[in-house]
Amino acid sequence: MEPCGQPARLTVRYAETDQMGVAYYANYLVWMEVGRVELLKQLGLRYRDLEREGYLLAVAEAHCRYRQPARYDEEVEIETRVSRATARLVQFEYRIRRAGDGAILATGYTKHVICDRELRPKRLEGKYARVLVEATEEEAGRL
Amino acid sequence: MEPCGQPARLTVRYAETDQMGVAYYANYLVWMEVGRVELLKQLGLRYRDLEREGYLLAVAEAHCRYRQPARYDEEVEIETRVSRATARLVQFEYRIRRAGDGAILATGYTKHVICDRELRPKRLEGKYARVLVEATEEEAGRL
Amino acid sequence: MEPCGQPARLTVRYAETDQMGVAYYANYLVWMEVGRVELLKQLGLRYRDLEREGYLLAVAEAHCRYRQPARYDEEVEIETRVSRATARLVQFEYRIRRAGDGAILATGYTKHVICDRELRPKRLEGKYARVLVEATEEEAGRL
Amino acid sequence: MEPCGQPARLTVRYAETDQMGVAYYANYLVWMEVGRVELLKQLGLRYRDLEREGYLLAVAEAHCRYRQPARYDEEVEIETRVSRATARLVQFEYRIRRAGDGAILATGYTKHVICDRELRPKRLEGKYARVLVEATEEEAGRL
Repeated sequence: MEPCGQPARLTVRYAETDQMGVAYYANYLVWMEVGRVELLKQLGLRYRDLEREGYLLAVAEAHCRYRQPARYDEEVEIETRVSRATARLVQFEYRIRRAGDGAILATGYTKHVICDRELRPKRLEGKYARVLVEATEEEAGRL
Repeated sequence: MEPCGQPARLTVRYAETDQMGVAYYANYLVWMEVGRVELLKQLGLRYRDLEREGYLLAVAEAHCRYRQPARYDEEVEIETRVSRATARLVQFEYRIRRAGDGAILATGYTKHVICDRELRPKRLEGKYARVLVEATEEEAGRL
Repeated sequence: MEPCGQPARLTVRYAETDQMGVAYYANYLVWMEVGRVELLKQLGLRYRDLEREGYLLAVAEAHCRYRQPARYDEEVEIETRVSRATARLVQFEYRIRRAGDGAILATGYTKHVICDRELRPKRLEGKYARVLVEATEEEAGRL
Repeated sequence: MEPCGQPARLTVRYAETDQMGVAYYANYLVWMEVGRVELLKQLGLRYRDLEREGYLLAVAEAHCRYRQPARYDEEVEIETRVSRATARLVQFEYRIRRAGDGAILATGYTKHVICDRELRPKRLEGKYARVLVEATEEEAGRL
């Protein structure tokens, strides 16, 4: 997996730990959201603008493989890339690393359906569609 | 504090603990929300109907005093009462107990401003206003 | 999928919604946790006792397919079963339904590695192992 | 209120919004945690080291006044100062601003009791006590 740009960065919050002493597993999905919002920003798209124009990315599927635990106050990097994009669907892939030593903590993906405000499927058009499709082609070209 | 009805009940989730081994402090505010939604239901108001009719209870202030920690898998009861209600403001008081032995874990209050969907102040009218005001008067009568 | 016992039940909290007006996708993993804790209880195991005796179920993988959104104040049921159990691994499957009409909102699974308190792999023994293995055999027998 | 150092910064996550379209009120307490951890870091203390040496800051009280809503993707600054510190108690004050225009979104405080790992009160000693007490004196001197 080649990330499209700079990884998103965050520090594990105390709120995100559980009594096992590590980050609770559902938080990785929150971090993936942070990663894809950052990637979209680097592609020139703000998710909030997308939403204002009536395009919602409803999650259809999420997957995460946990390799090493993330611990409180550790800095974490989320590498994200668009692995697939059509007018109806977008798929992202993620690699979450510990910033300190680069160790991979988790990998995963999410699939999203483009929807309108009432959560009915809708075709993504114009600039948004172009940018996402180009991001995946660029990706393909690099391989 | 005399609660208006049956307390809300919940079991502390693993997700709600932190590495201190107890429930993270912000979750008590989530539990207060569970308590006030339950109280409204017992008063014959569903918060989601309130919202559909264009009345939002925007939080203006929240306070919590933590007495004893809540632990994973413990059953917790939230006693809630309306301590003040006008056409513009509603105030709730909470007492959070461990169901097992009745020990008080926390007490607190929240103040809410009645707003419209754009979060501008708005007067609460009709049935909703009546029920809330009556709930506080009943309260006062009991003292 | 045949669930092993009674489904866990919960009501979608306001805290669990996002500005799309539906439950945020990471919360489904929290609900899965609620489901598996409930299933373990029905099998006569309390997760907190398991943990006290030094057995942690560290999540190795999580997957969720989202079919229909869960909305604020809806009652939700989580059917859970043990789909695989060895001395080192346990796998759970989940089906999340809207209680009102039984509609399936999401399906998914989680895989867990049995660990000690330092999160090193460890063999599950005695009563715990027996109960989990039996739960999967019973499952197999029913098919 | 004079903050002790640089404010902590964060971007409001989608996960932190609710269906009112703004950040859910319990998250401000999470942000206060981010603010105090950052302040401690700037004072030369890492909360995780504090905890490793057996000092936990158990929350005894939390208060937040909400002035303006924080919205998705807005950058937020948390100014924090130690308003009181003894060997047994630490109190922090917070001012949360929208980074864009500096508008105050919320103010609040938290009170913490120094505890050991079993959450029994304990006196804070040595370097930690000195740094926290000095931070409040410096504060006092500035007024």
